[in-house]
Amino acid sequence: MAHKNGMSYAPRGKSRPVVKPGDFRFAAAGLDHGHIIAMSQGLVDAGAQLVWVYDPDAAKVERFRATFSQAQPAPSLEAILDDTSIRLVASAAVPSDRGPIGLKVLGAGKHYLSDKAPFTTREQLQQARAKVEATGLHWAVCYSERVQNEAAVHAGELIHDGAIGRVLQVLGLGPHRLSAPDRPDWFFRKRHYGGILIDIGSHQIEQFLYYTGASSAEVLHSKVANYHHPQYPELEDFGDATLLADNGATNYFRVDWFTPDGLGIWGDGRTVILGTAGYIELRKYIDVARDETGDHVYMVDGSGEHHIPVHGKIGFPYFGRLILDCLEGTDAAMPQAHTFRAAELCLEAQEKAMRVG
Amino acid sequence: MAHKNGMSYAPRGKSRPVVKPGDFRFAAAGLDHGHIIAMSQGLVDAGAQLVWVYDPDAAKVERFRATFSQAQPAPSLEAILDDTSIRLVASAAVPSDRGPIGLKVLGAGKHYLSDKAPFTTREQLQQARAKVEATGLHWAVCYSERVQNEAAVHAGELIHDGAIGRVLQVLGLGPHRLSAPDRPDWFFRKRHYGGILIDIGSHQIEQFLYYTGASSAEVLHSKVANYHHPQYPELEDFGDATLLADNGATNYFRVDWFTPDGLGIWGDGRTVILGTAGYIELRKYIDVARDETGDHVYMVDGSGEHHIPVHGKIGFPYFGRLILDCLEGTDAAMPQAHTFRAAELCLEAQEKAMRVG
Repeated sequence: MAHKNGMSYAPRGKSRPVVKPGDFRFAAAGLDHGHIIAMSQGLVDAGAQLVWVYDPDAAKVERFRATFSQAQPAPSLEAILDDTSIRLVASAAVPSDRGPIGLKVLGAGKHYLSDKAPFTTREQLQQARAKVEATGLHWAVCYSERVQNEAAVHAGELIHDGAIGRVLQVLGLGPHRLSAPDRPDWFFRKRHYGGILIDIGSHQIEQFLYYTGASSAEVLHSKVANYHHPQYPELEDFGDATLLADNGATNYFRVDWFTPDGLGIWGDGRTVILGTAGYIELRKYIDVARDETGDHVYMVDGSGEHHIPVHGKIGFPYFGRLILDCLEGTDAAMPQAHTFRAAELCLEAQEKAMRVG
Repeated sequence: MAHKNGMSYAPRGKSRPVVKPGDFRFAAAGLDHGHIIAMSQGLVDAGAQLVWVYDPDAAKVERFRATFSQAQPAPSLEAILDDTSIRLVASAAVPSDRGPIGLKVLGAGKHYLSDKAPFTTREQLQQARAKVEATGLHWAVCYSERVQNEAAVHAGELIHDGAIGRVLQVLGLGPHRLSAPDRPDWFFRKRHYGGILIDIGSHQIEQFLYYTGASSAEVLHSKVANYHHPQYPELEDFGDATLLADNGATNYFRVDWFTPDGLGIWGDGRTVILGTAGYIELRKYIDVARDETGDHVYMVDGSGEHHIPVHGKIGFPYFGRLILDCLEGTDAAMPQAHTFRAAELCLEAQEKAMRVG
C-alpha cells in the first residue's frame, strides 16, 4: 500500500517515447524522497535511458534498483558528472541539498531535474538563476501535482481552449498523509525541508501561475501552524496562503498533514478553478466514497455539468517535452522563468507566514 | 425553475411543530428578498401561526400570499407592531433597512427574525446590541446556508459528537447565480446591500464560528473585486477572506456571483471542515454531475470514507428552537452574542477588504 502514504506514489502515464533508445541518457542522484521513482519513470516512459543511480546510502540505491534494474550504481555523484554521455541528472535529495546539487550538475554541463521544492533559501534560488544564465542549461523542477496528474494536465488543456473563460481564482487543497513513523529525520527539520509552504505549498503556487497564465504574483497573506504534533516541534502541519497575480487573478491554497487513515490514498488533492464562464474542480487522486481511481475533472459551464474521468487517457506530456527542450534548446515543458518564479513565491509565502495554532 | 436563480429558494425541512396552533403568532414585514418565503416556511413548519404580511409594494404582498394565503395584508408595519398578539416579526427588507426595522420591532416588545445580512453599518449593529440589552428580546438572524441546509445541520451534530476531532479549519465556497436582469435596483447599490462580504459572506463567517465553537475571531485578510460586470460598478462579483478564531482555528471563504448557467441549482455551495481526526465536505445544494439532490455529507475519518446523503432526514431544528427561545427566554437556537459577532466580523471583513481585479 505504498500509494497510501504517498512517499513512493508513482502514477504511470501513457508511454510516449519522443526519442530513440540511447538518444537521451540520464542519471538519478539523491534518493532521499521517493518522488525520484516517479520522476525517473516519467523520463523513462518518454524514451530516456536511465544509466546511473547514486546515493550515499547503498540501501536506497538497492530499493531504487528494485524498480529500475537497468540503472548501474555509480560510486559518486562526480562519477556521473564525469560521464559526458549523460544529458540530465534527476534528484530527490533532501530539499536543502537540491540547490547545491543542481549547481554541480549544471557546472558539469548537464541539465537538471529537481524534485520540488527546489530551494529552501533565497540564496540557493539566486545561485540557480545565475547558473542557468551562465550555462544556458535547464534547471527543471518536477511539480508533480500538476505535471504527473492527468486531471491537472487536462484542466490546462480545457482552460487553454477557453472552456471556462478568463480564470479568476485558483483554489487548491493539498492534504497529505503524515505517516510520521516512516519519515526520515530530515523531514522534521525545518532547515532541511524549508517549511510547509515551501515543501508542499510549491505545487500549489506553480498551478496558480500556470492556470491563470500569470508571469508573477505577490503573496498577500500566509500562515503556518503546528496544531497537533508537539513531539515534532519543527514540523508545520498546516499552512495556507493567498496570492494576487500580475493579471488580477487570485489564489488561495491550504496544505496540511492531516489525511485521516480511512482515506484510500495519501491525500484528497483538489483544485477548483473559477472562471468567468464556468468552473473546474479536480479530484486528483480519489473521488471520495465514489471512486477509488483518481484523475477526475468536474466542469460546469454554460451548457451543463460534466464529469470527465481521464485516468489513463491523457498521459504526462511534461517529460517528453522536457527531453526535447534539453535536446533542442527550447523551453516548452515549463518555462524556466515560471519554474523559478513559483519557487520564489513559495519562499516569499514562507517568509511572510504568521504563526497560528 | 425558481430554485435555479436562488431568489426564492425555499428548502423544506421536516415539519416538527413545537407549539400548538395559535401559541406563537408572527408576521412577515419587508419582502424585498425572496428569503422571506423560506424564513416564514421554517417558522410555520415549526408550529408558528403566520398572521400578517406587510410590504409597501402590494405586488410583493400578493406574491407572498400565493404561498401563504393565511397571511392577512396589514396596512402598515405599525399596524403589526400594534397587535399585541404578535410575538415575532420576520423581515427580508433591503439589507440596509433590516437594522432600522428591527429597532422598531423590539421597541414594540416583539422578537425579530432578520434575513442575513442583518446590518450594513457598524452603527446599526451597535444600536441593535443596545436594544437587545435594553429589552431582553431576541434579534435573530436567519443564516440560512447553515440553519436551512440539512447537510450543514448534520455536520454540526457530527462535529459535536467528536467525529473529526478538534476543528482546525473551516473552508467555504459560496458561489451564487447573479441573474442580473431579475434583480432589483437595490441589489446593485452598495449602500443598500453592503458589499459582497457582508451580504453572502455573512453565512460563511457564521458557519466558521459555529463549527469551530469559537466565540470570536479576527479578520486577517480580505479582498473584493468586480471582475466582470462593469455595467454594475457598485457590484462586487468576488470576495474572499481568512480569519483566525480565538481558539486558534482558521477560516477561509470565497463568495462570488459566477455560477454558470449550466449548473442545476443557484450555487454549488461547499463547506470543508478539517479536523485533527478527519474531515467533512458538504455539498449543500447539488452533487455536481452526480446527483441533483442536495444535502450531501462526505466524511473521511480513521475508519474510512463515508457518503451520508441526508436530504429529508434531518430537518431544520433552528426554527422550533427559536420559537421556544422566544416563549421561554432561552438562547438555544443561536446564541445572541454569536449572531451579532458573525455580523460584526462581516463588517470587519468588508472594511478591511483590499480591492483587486
